[in-house]
This record gives sequence, structure tokens and C-alpha cells, in this order.
Amino acid sequence: MPTYKAPLRDIRFVMDEMLDFPAHYSQLPNGDEASPEIINAILEEGAKFAEEVLTPLNQSGDTQGCQHNDGEVTTPEGFKEAYQQFVEGGWPSMTQDTTYGGQGLPQSLGMVLNEMICSSNLSWGMYPGLSHGAMDALQHHGTEEQKQTYLTKMVEGSWTGTMCLTEPHCGTDLGLIRTKAEPQADGSFSVSGTKIFISAGEHDMSDNIVHLVLAKLPDAPEGSKGISLFIVPKFTPDANGEPGERNGVQCGSIEHKMGIHGNSTCVMNFDEAKGYIIGEPNKGLSYMFVMMNAARIGVGIQGLGLTEVAYQNSLAYTRDRLQMRSLNGPKAPEKPADPIIVHPDVRRMLLTQKAFAEGGRALIYYTAQLIDQVSAGGEEAKDADDLLGLLTPIVKAFLTEAGFESTNQGLQCFGGHGFIHEWGMEQFVRDARITLLYEGTTGIQALDLLGRKILMNQGESLRKFTKQVHKFCQAEEGNEELAALIAPLAKANKEWGDITMQIGMKAMQNRDEVGAASVDYLMYSGYVTLGYFWAKAAKVAQEALAAGTTEEAFYKGKLATAQFYFSKLFPRTQTLAATIAQGGDSLMAMEEDQFGAGFEI
Amino acid sequence: MPTYKAPLRDIRFVMDEMLDFPAHYSQLPNGDEASPEIINAILEEGAKFAEEVLTPLNQSGDTQGCQHNDGEVTTPEGFKEAYQQFVEGGWPSMTQDTTYGGQGLPQSLGMVLNEMICSSNLSWGMYPGLSHGAMDALQHHGTEEQKQTYLTKMVEGSWTGTMCLTEPHCGTDLGLIRTKAEPQADGSFSVSGTKIFISAGEHDMSDNIVHLVLAKLPDAPEGSKGISLFIVPKFTPDANGEPGERNGVQCGSIEHKMGIHGNSTCVMNFDEAKGYIIGEPNKGLSYMFVMMNAARIGVGIQGLGLTEVAYQNSLAYTRDRLQMRSLNGPKAPEKPADPIIVHPDVRRMLLTQKAFAEGGRALIYYTAQLIDQVSAGGEEAKDADDLLGLLTPIVKAFLTEAGFESTNQGLQCFGGHGFIHEWGMEQFVRDARITLLYEGTTGIQALDLLGRKILMNQGESLRKFTKQVHKFCQAEEGNEELAALIAPLAKANKEWGDITMQIGMKAMQNRDEVGAASVDYLMYSGYVTLGYFWAKAAKVAQEALAAGTTEEAFYKGKLATAQFYFSKLFPRTQTLAATIAQGGDSLMAMEEDQFGAGFEI
Repeated sequence: MPTYKAPLRDIRFVMDEMLDFPAHYSQLPNGDEASPEIINAILEEGAKFAEEVLTPLNQSGDTQGCQHNDGEVTTPEGFKEAYQQFVEGGWPSMTQDTTYGGQGLPQSLGMVLNEMICSSNLSWGMYPGLSHGAMDALQHHGTEEQKQTYLTKMVEGSWTGTMCLTEPHCGTDLGLIRTKAEPQADGSFSVSGTKIFISAGEHDMSDNIVHLVLAKLPDAPEGSKGISLFIVPKFTPDANGEPGERNGVQCGSIEHKMGIHGNSTCVMNFDEAKGYIIGEPNKGLSYMFVMMNAARIGVGIQGLGLTEVAYQNSLAYTRDRLQMRSLNGPKAPEKPADPIIVHPDVRRMLLTQKAFAEGGRALIYYTAQLIDQVSAGGEEAKDADDLLGLLTPIVKAFLTEAGFESTNQGLQCFGGHGFIHEWGMEQFVRDARITLLYEGTTGIQALDLLGRKILMNQGESLRKFTKQVHKFCQAEEGNEELAALIAPLAKANKEWGDITMQIGMKAMQNRDEVGAASVDYLMYSGYVTLGYFWAKAAKVAQEALAAGTTEEAFYKGKLATAQFYFSKLFPRTQTLAATIAQGGDSLMAMEEDQFGAGFEI
Repeated sequence: MPTYKAPLRDIRFVMDEMLDFPAHYSQLPNGDEASPEIINAILEEGAKFAEEVLTPLNQSGDTQGCQHNDGEVTTPEGFKEAYQQFVEGGWPSMTQDTTYGGQGLPQSLGMVLNEMICSSNLSWGMYPGLSHGAMDALQHHGTEEQKQTYLTKMVEGSWTGTMCLTEPHCGTDLGLIRTKAEPQADGSFSVSGTKIFISAGEHDMSDNIVHLVLAKLPDAPEGSKGISLFIVPKFTPDANGEPGERNGVQCGSIEHKMGIHGNSTCVMNFDEAKGYIIGEPNKGLSYMFVMMNAARIGVGIQGLGLTEVAYQNSLAYTRDRLQMRSLNGPKAPEKPADPIIVHPDVRRMLLTQKAFAEGGRALIYYTAQLIDQVSAGGEEAKDADDLLGLLTPIVKAFLTEAGFESTNQGLQCFGGHGFIHEWGMEQFVRDARITLLYEGTTGIQALDLLGRKILMNQGESLRKFTKQVHKFCQAEEGNEELAALIAPLAKANKEWGDITMQIGMKAMQNRDEVGAASVDYLMYSGYVTLGYFWAKAAKVAQEALAAGTTEEAFYKGKLATAQFYFSKLFPRTQTLAATIAQGGDSLMAMEEDQFGAGFEI
């Protein structure tokens, strides 16, 4: 069975040494709450909860899966108890508004915790994760009464939430939804329709489930401009605010999936269910985007979490497994064969995971600071929001693609044993596979990045980021030891802007050029972004080593991983730049009847 | 549920138009047997069997899996009956020696059939597939009596075979095996030990199972030079050659796996089982390589088969699924949204699969001709054998990596639905995942290619292939329409040799440089090799169009796919060349204690 140890040393490296979280917190209105003692307690207790409570339930949760029986869903053994412990530990309230029972800590701390949860038990983590998204939407757009009724219960953890968007015939294209909301005399709405892929839609872990549902009012405009957002509780609250009457929303079935078996993915049938509108009519999609952006970052964290745990387990295996000799002669002559970590290609697979995990962590934590800054409002909020908008699709798509590659590399380190369930590596791959799909596929993220976040504002957000990279590269120009990192980073950072311009020019003639370039462009952006964080990490490690340290292994390993990243992963930008330059002609030239001509006789 | 239609038009394109199989067969001693009528019957009947018998059992086989009960294994519903039909159709004997009941047809025809089987039901295909490998080994190295006793039954299909190599502590490194064979007074051997990962090790489809087992004689030299090969039948044949006494070999358990659930992957316990030595003592590993090389090509065909079926199903879905509008304005204004095949990135995913499927098919069929030539012996056999040796690791590793990428792209075309079992796409991904592992991982194939097949013979085999590519490029130099294909192919083909030289030079100083470059080198080789076949395909299509044809969609689609391959996939050689040039320093610099310093506090 796989194991997990929270990477606290590396987490502290990113927080304290790379991104100066103490200084960051000192700038926030609620920063005082994030005292060193509190941070320490969160890291230590969070690690303990992830390692000791969640990790042991991960494989059994996968094997057992969820059971659906006539509308009721039973989660795997231990899931419910773990959730109770989570609630008792006060975790759901950690970053919530103190007005509604929260502890008011910065969002960033929740994301640190979330990484550990995703590493240890992705399926379990989705129950509180979805709740978190629903709380965000209520916090931002709910009425005071709605907040008092629903949010306080969710903050406390006794009620959980969902996001109900997708329908059988539409996922990406929410303008097509058919779920209807009819106004009632009492000001409520009668909601009817079918939603699919509803994570945590029904389960046995909380007293009530608060569904946030996209639906159309009778007089709504066509398409995405006619969508409203509703609260549809499983039990409508009674006069005391406790779960009252059973509402007309029912789990029809749960999906049989490739992975995340421990999470219930439900078909939810709304049959004249009582609903309450959130905010104004027809603005539901923009409200839902509050949840969706947070959820996208959350999925990026899932990619990171799985990368980390795959790395840890493949590292352990490759140190242990004896097979063949080093090509340069025996490294462990006393043993019947060398541990396979001596082989260069095994190291390539390990270092790929390590580079994505640690680089991804720095990127996520940087994003976390931006989220804190946006929440805080004030002067820096606009810039932070632009950067956050830019980085969100990169975090979501790049770190999940990296996570899928990493979990596969981790599995591959095990040879044939990687394919066997008991070793646990194949579960990481199956669990990772969903992260490229939900909350917008890689392709959708790529369109969001290139189309909406970059071309639509003439590259303004991009320039804010590339300027930062440029300044860093300029400052380190004379840094001989890091020249193999800084030089290619500076070059690609400049090229990033050039490529953007080229696509922009082509797109003025033909908008398909945006779609044709988009995924390669997103991946290019990801490699450069991670390159920036790796170069920064290398500089910090270099300084620590120069200053003298008792942790040579840590800092030297950091430097060596940075060198690896620029030597073996960063050059992927070359192919991406080349395929982007090729444009979209070779994609669009095929006529539809030509696709199947080899087998449709 | 996924569907499958044998790509007969494309198969005929490769056989008749690209690789001139009629001429090829006319050169073979058994080529007369492969008459146009016979080939046609094999294609038509094979397609029918794959489409109508095997395809409907693929998903149910995955869901049901195999059941193990006290040494007995029950295969999924319908598997046994399908195998009976297969036997009744005479398929197991198709390419076997007429002396032992075979039909004596060229091996290549078996490979064509095999592609269809792998597309329709990979798990099922492994039962006859393993048998085929065992037949090869017996044919080459068995005594006449062994052939009469075992081979005739396997040719007929009433008995099946296995390969028993792996043990819990060794897979790649077979020198470490512990299974023992003690000589007995009657000339037989008593075989004891445990083998794992034995595909088709126990099942209910045949009357007897003939295990070919690697084991060590008591006085055997250390390591891989002390391994012998034994026949260990499940039932020892009685005086009439029928299954007699139950032998001391037992299935201990079956593995819980990520995929290929319909195939029984067994732990086989040999407890003083009666065995019969094949060939000479201590030469078992070289005999096993006969099976292993054929098996490696077979796994490459699995990669191809899964690519094809993933492509067909994702194509159907993307034509059907309505979501969003084309960025250039509605393509199907009468519908609520456009079919997603209008989107450039969806086309990228489709064309990636198509390019790997059709390019991979040409490569496999070319390899099939080499196999025929090697079997035929004579003048051309040496060159064919060299080329076959060179291409075997490429076929195995590159086409399975391509298959894993393709099945994942196919899944991705379905969005969230791709993750759901019922659509069948996630099964293709899970089934494909094993192909990167068994019969030697990608890393092992890469070492075989670069170390054994290229550097050890000073690049002689490689030059035989690159010369062929060079001649083709030279002949097409003035072909304006194909300039975007020929120019980069010619350049990369030359660079292939240069890169090989560079690695060879570095390796003289440090043998780890071979391992460091190996996987990138193999993938580079794969892209160039497929590039050659795509350029050839384009030329054939160009000529057909010039000559006038009623099949414009087919040939234009072929040309367009070739353009796509060189525009979007071939440029991956650029990154691979760059990472190879970086050498192994960044892999080997990490000290072992540095790997885990981020979480091992």
C-alpha cells in the first residue's frame, strides 16, 4: 500500500525562503491571524490528519467505491468518520468569514492544507472541496439571510455543498442547459431538470446538502445570458434552521468511473424542488465563475498532490528494487543486483516527478498569495487579479497534465508491478485522469488562457508576468553558476511575447488560429512559468549553500533538480514553439468525410 | 458501448499500394499460398470475427474480469465460446508449419489478423497470442517428438501455451531467477518455483496448457548464462497424446490489475512439476528470445490496435456531440450548437490518433515483411534480420507510447464522458497502459535499441535503414507538393546518424550516457521512422490522385494526415534532439539522499 509523508521541508522552503509568506501575511488585513504558531499548527496537524487519517483510507476507498441504493449513497468505510474528525478539528471553517463562524485565516493556508489532502486521498478531499466552492459563491453573492441559514452550517461543516452545472447534453456549453426554475407565490422557485456529474451530490457524511444549481427562468434570454443560480437544499431548513422537509431533489444513480471511486459522482434529478435564487436573475453564470475559478485552482492542486505522492512512492520503490547492474559497473556489489535508482532512465522518471511537484508547489503558492491579495482588496488587488486570471488556466491545465505524466512515470518506475492494484500506483494514474477533464478540459483552459486572458486584453496580464520574469533574469544575468537556467529562461520569456503577437496577427484573419495554437501555447506558457519558479528556487538554494547550512542535501538536491528541469523538461518549449508556428492549416484542411475513409467503406 | 470496424480500406492501401505485398509474397517459398483470394478471405472473415464476435465481448469482459477459485480460472462470459469459434475457423493454424497441421501461410498475414483482434478485444487476444509465442519457440527449438506431442495440439488450438519468465524478485533481470529444475531418472525434470505475471497461465478455454518455463539446473552457471527452458504441461500427455495426469503446476492467484481484466494474469506455483527440457541446457534465455521478439512485435500491434479503435470511437463522438460554435461562426446553424469536430483542438486530437494508427500500420506491415523474409531464409534474410532487430524495439516501445497517447486523446475528445466506464474509452486507456510495461518496458526497449542494436554493431543496422530513407528522400527531392514532408525528413534522417555518433563518443567515456539518452533516442527514432512511412504514404496518395480516382476522400485524407504529421508531431524530434544533446549529467548529479530531502525530515 502506498505511503505519504507531507513534504513539510519543501513547503516551508516555498513559504519562507522563496515567496516570503511572513512578509506577504504582514500586508493582509487578516494577516495577523496567520502567526508563525498558527501556520506551524496547521502544517503539523494537517500533515498528521493527511498521513494518519486520510492516507490509510485511500486504497480501500478505491476498492470499495460508493454504493447507491434508492437515492441514498453510502461512502466507503471510514470516510464518514474521517469527515467527522475533520469537522471536529475545525478545518472547514479555517479560511471562512468570522461573521459566519469562520476563523478568518487567509485562503492561502487552506490551499496548503488542500495539497496534503489531495496527496493522501483525492476522492475524500472532494467532499469538503466542493463545499468550499459553494461557500465561496454564497459568501460573495448570497443575501445575509442565505448566509445565516446556509453558510454558517457549511462553515461549521455539518452541511456540505455542491455545484450543479452539467446536463447530459451540455458540459462546456452551459448556454444549452434545460433545467427550469418557475417562480412561486412565496418568492421561492420550483426547480426541475436533470444534472449529471455532480460530485458529492449525495452521500452520508453531512446532515444536509446545499446544491447550487444553474437553471433558466421562464422568460430568460437564450444562451448563457439567461442562466440563474439557485440554492436547492436536500432538506429545506425548518424554523430553527435545522434540516426540515425533504426537498424534491434525488440522486438517480452514481457513475461507474475510471477513478476517484471513493467520491460519489451523481445524476441528480430535480423534480419541482424548492429553490431560492442567488443574486439577480440571469447572472448565474458569472456567480458560478467565482466557484469555478477557485475550483480550477483546486484541480491544479490535485495535479500537484498526486505528483507528490507518486514521486514519494516511486522513489521508495526504486531505492528498494534490485534489478540489473549500473552500466558503469556494480554500485552495490554486495547485493545480487543494484537498486534501480542507479539507472539514468529511472532517475529521469523520478526527477520528472520531483521537478513537477516542487515547481508546481511554488507556482500554486504564488497563486495562493495572489488569491489572498485579491480577497484583501486595495491597491494591489487589480494587478493580483490580472495575474491570477492569467495563471488560473495554467495552474489548472499545466499542473494536471504534469500530474498525469508524473503519476504515469511513477507507475512506470514499478515495471509490471505498477499495473497491479495493490501497489497503488495505478490508482494515482486513474485518479489523475479526471483532472484533465473536469472544471474545463485542457482544451477549454487553453482557449481561456489564449483567447480570453491574453488576446482579449492585448496581452496586458501577460506582460505583467513576463516583466517580473524579465526583471529576475536581468538581476541574475551575471550569475555564472545559474547561467544554464537563466539564459534559456530569458530567451523563452521574450519568445513568449513574440509567439503571442504572431498568433494574434494570424487570429485577426482567421479565428481558428486561436484554437489551433491554444493547447501548445498553454503548455509553452506552463514550461516558462515553471522555469521561472525553478530558477528562483535555484537562486535561493545557491544563497543558502553560500551562507552555509546543515541541510546540504536539501539545497543541493534543489539545485540539481533545477538543472534537470532546464536540461530535460524546459526544451519541450522548442517543439511547442515549432508546432505553434506551423499554424492551423494542417488541422482545418481535412474535410469531414476524409477522417473516416480508412474504415468507412 | 464502443464499436469497431476493421479498417480494410487502409489495410489494403498499406498492403497493395504502399508495400506491394503481392510482389513480396511472390518472393517467398510459401508465397503461393498467400493468393489474392486467400488474403481476401482472411481480411473479410477476420474482420467479421473481430467485429461481430470479439467486439461485443470487450466491455463485458472488462466488467466481469476473470474469476479464480481454488486453482481454477473462469474467463468472462463468451470468451470460451469465442475461442471455440476461433479454433473452428482454423485461425490458430494459419501461419503454422504444415508438418504439424498448419496452413503454412506467411507470418505477416497473422499479424494483419492480430491487429483486428487487438482493436476489438485485447484481453481475449492474449490467450491465442501467448500460444502463438510458445508455438514459435517449440517450432524452432523443440525435438521432433516434442513438436508432435505439443505443437500439433497447439496448432489445432485445443491446447494453449504460456511464457513463464518473471518471478516476484525479478522481471527485467532474469539472471536472478530461482525456479529450479532437478534432473530425474527418466530424463525428465522436476520443476519447482513461483512465477508471476503469467498471462493466460490458467483458464477454461483449452483442454491443456503448455507452460514454457525458465528454470535453473542444479549445476547451472550464475546469472543469465545458467538458465534453461522447459516444457511443463498442465496435464502430462498420456500414451495417446491426450491430457493425462494432472501435473504439479497450479494457479495460486490472479492479479488485480488496472486493465486487461478479461485476461487471467496468474501467479503460477510449480511444485515438483514434471518438465521436459527444450534444446540444450543453459541456453534457455536465447530460446526464449525467439518468443520474446515475436511477443514484442505483438505488443506493438496491441498499441496499433488500440490506437485504431480509440480513433474510430472518438471520431464518431466528435461528429455527434454538439457543443459551442466554431470560432469562425456557426457551421451547423440549424442545430443548437456545432458538432465538436469543427474545433481545431478536437481535430488535433483526432488527427494525432489517425496519424499514429495509419503510420503505425505501415511500420508494422513493413516489419511483417521482414519477418516473412527472415523465416524464408536465403540471401535477403541477413539484411531483413538486421532491420528487424533494429525496428523491433521501436515497434514495441514507440507504438505503445503512441497508443497510450492516442487512447488518452480519444478519451479526451469525450470530455467528462470519457471518464465514464460505459463509453468504453477509459478501458482502452487502462488496457493500453500495460503495453508500456510487459515484454520489456519502454526503458528496456530503449536500451536494447541504442545499446545492443545500434552501438554494439557500430550503427550497421541503422545505416541500412537510414540509407533506405535517404534514397527515398533523394528521389523525391523535386516533389514540390511534398516538400514540407521530404525536407524535414531528410534533415532528421541525417541528424539521426549524427546524434548516434555523439552518444557513441560520450558513451566511450561514460556508459551511463547510453541510459541517459536511450528513451529520448528511441522516441526520436520512432518519429523519424514513422515520418518515412508517412512520406511514402503521401507519395502513393499523390500518385493515385494524379492518376484519377473515385476515392478522393481517402487519398486526400491520407495526404492531409501526412501534412498534419509533419506539421504537429514530427517537430517533437527537435526537443528530443535537444534533450539528448544535454547528456546525462543532470540525471546522475543527484546524490541518493538528495532525492527525498523535501519530505524526509
